[in-house]
Amino acid sequence: MDPVERVHLRAREGGSDVEREDTLAVEEPLEIRVRAPGSTSVARFVTTMRTPGNDEELVAGLLHAEGIVTSREELVALERPSDPRIEPELRANVLVASLAPEALARAQGLQRATVMGSACGVCGRTEIGRVLPEGTPPLDSALRVSGELLYALPARLREGQSVFARTGGLHAAGLFDSGGRLLELREDIGRHNAVDKLVGAHWLAGKLPLRNCLLLVSGRAGFEIVQKAFFAGIPILASVSAPSSLAVELAEAGGLTLVGFLRERRFNVYAHPRRIAAP
Amino acid sequence: MDPVERVHLRAREGGSDVEREDTLAVEEPLEIRVRAPGSTSVARFVTTMRTPGNDEELVAGLLHAEGIVTSREELVALERPSDPRIEPELRANVLVASLAPEALARAQGLQRATVMGSACGVCGRTEIGRVLPEGTPPLDSALRVSGELLYALPARLREGQSVFARTGGLHAAGLFDSGGRLLELREDIGRHNAVDKLVGAHWLAGKLPLRNCLLLVSGRAGFEIVQKAFFAGIPILASVSAPSSLAVELAEAGGLTLVGFLRERRFNVYAHPRRIAAP
Repeated sequence: MDPVERVHLRAREGGSDVEREDTLAVEEPLEIRVRAPGSTSVARFVTTMRTPGNDEELVAGLLHAEGIVTSREELVALERPSDPRIEPELRANVLVASLAPEALARAQGLQRATVMGSACGVCGRTEIGRVLPEGTPPLDSALRVSGELLYALPARLREGQSVFARTGGLHAAGLFDSGGRLLELREDIGRHNAVDKLVGAHWLAGKLPLRNCLLLVSGRAGFEIVQKAFFAGIPILASVSAPSSLAVELAEAGGLTLVGFLRERRFNVYAHPRRIAAP
Repeated sequence: MDPVERVHLRAREGGSDVEREDTLAVEEPLEIRVRAPGSTSVARFVTTMRTPGNDEELVAGLLHAEGIVTSREELVALERPSDPRIEPELRANVLVASLAPEALARAQGLQRATVMGSACGVCGRTEIGRVLPEGTPPLDSALRVSGELLYALPARLREGQSVFARTGGLHAAGLFDSGGRLLELREDIGRHNAVDKLVGAHWLAGKLPLRNCLLLVSGRAGFEIVQKAFFAGIPILASVSAPSSLAVELAEAGGLTLVGFLRERRFNVYAHPRRIAAP
């Protein structure tokens, strides 16, 4: 499937209507199923809306970020369903993850209706504790970059995007090396998906943690974006927009440098400024 | 809880660093629990990240948009947990929905690991079929507005937002009447949440369908935003940015007028332009 699609629309410009063709980001559901290796008993894990492409990376990144798989070996296989009764169009929107027993149990545990004691509750602190259980060491990296290097990243991310993505509806996540070179870029209609695809690609290749890399996202940096960067071992996360309160708290607790509003030779540092060299 | 929070940050501007205070959008988890009325057996339905405020509306809107509750009566009560062992901070992030038996069964069905035949699959068409089962009538509304009226909406949405939201990290969803007056506005760190809060408020008040209203969202219009507008009976949905391919298809199938890139006296109409008067 193509990540963009032509549509017919009516545009009003300068007070008059013109009929025209334009491109839109494709959004399609991806159903993630889980099973024991070789088993015919398959369970639906989750359905997520995404832009088609790099689906294996997306699923791997998502299973990794959610803590379902803790090692590469626990993801035994990632395949399209083989049943010939499934139409090709439907097959393209399903991926079946064969999981080792512990990982399968985690997937089922996350999914099942949890009957619980009425005294439990949640807050930002409990969410941070879920990502950083007692004793988790903060990110350890000697990476240090200059402000000039940061200034250059947004333009490189845009250059790396397809022409459509620059002007239309796709979010981008870019991974940069310590010299500011764009190593890899993923695009998706969902901000979280773009990061999952990027991290998933490296996790599948056995390349985590990414201790000497920077991650730049085209949208905002919320809690889950910081969580994904932390689990990938990325020490510097930058966004062109605002972080959330809880994103800042998690970055602070996890030892991650969080940069926001990176645009036009300015930026804010919300956590761990030590990795940004003084001007 | 306040929707914004003061943080300390280091800003680099004009080549030098300044320490300063700034405001960030608060992001906190909200745990939605479900139970039969009066039962002590409570199950976790979902945890969603949101900006605190209008939580009851958010939960009502979400249960409505997901088709868990199909009538106002099925939501018997919506309460904070009463267990005195829960700390106040945690209580503020939990809401317990007491549901009629059919609604409770739908919530449990959506949540449980679904063991399924291997031949099922998904695609955009199946998702549209889920929202619009065979025989669902398209949105019926005689609402018709001028281009001039549309041009005025984004500025009114911005004026209605808090100063912070205009400059920082909050998304907005605004409901307008047929004369272009802003009736109601909700803000949230999540685009979907802002719409759920807005629709949920009207659903709780027994005011759906909103056949003579327009909805304007500050971000993109994806499939789920169109789904929420459709279930609220809103005939015109506008966004300042791009729709997705599937959003356009759902709007087309559901009889909803979909406007995108509404900014600076221009806009595109992707579906059902009949409700926009000719120039």
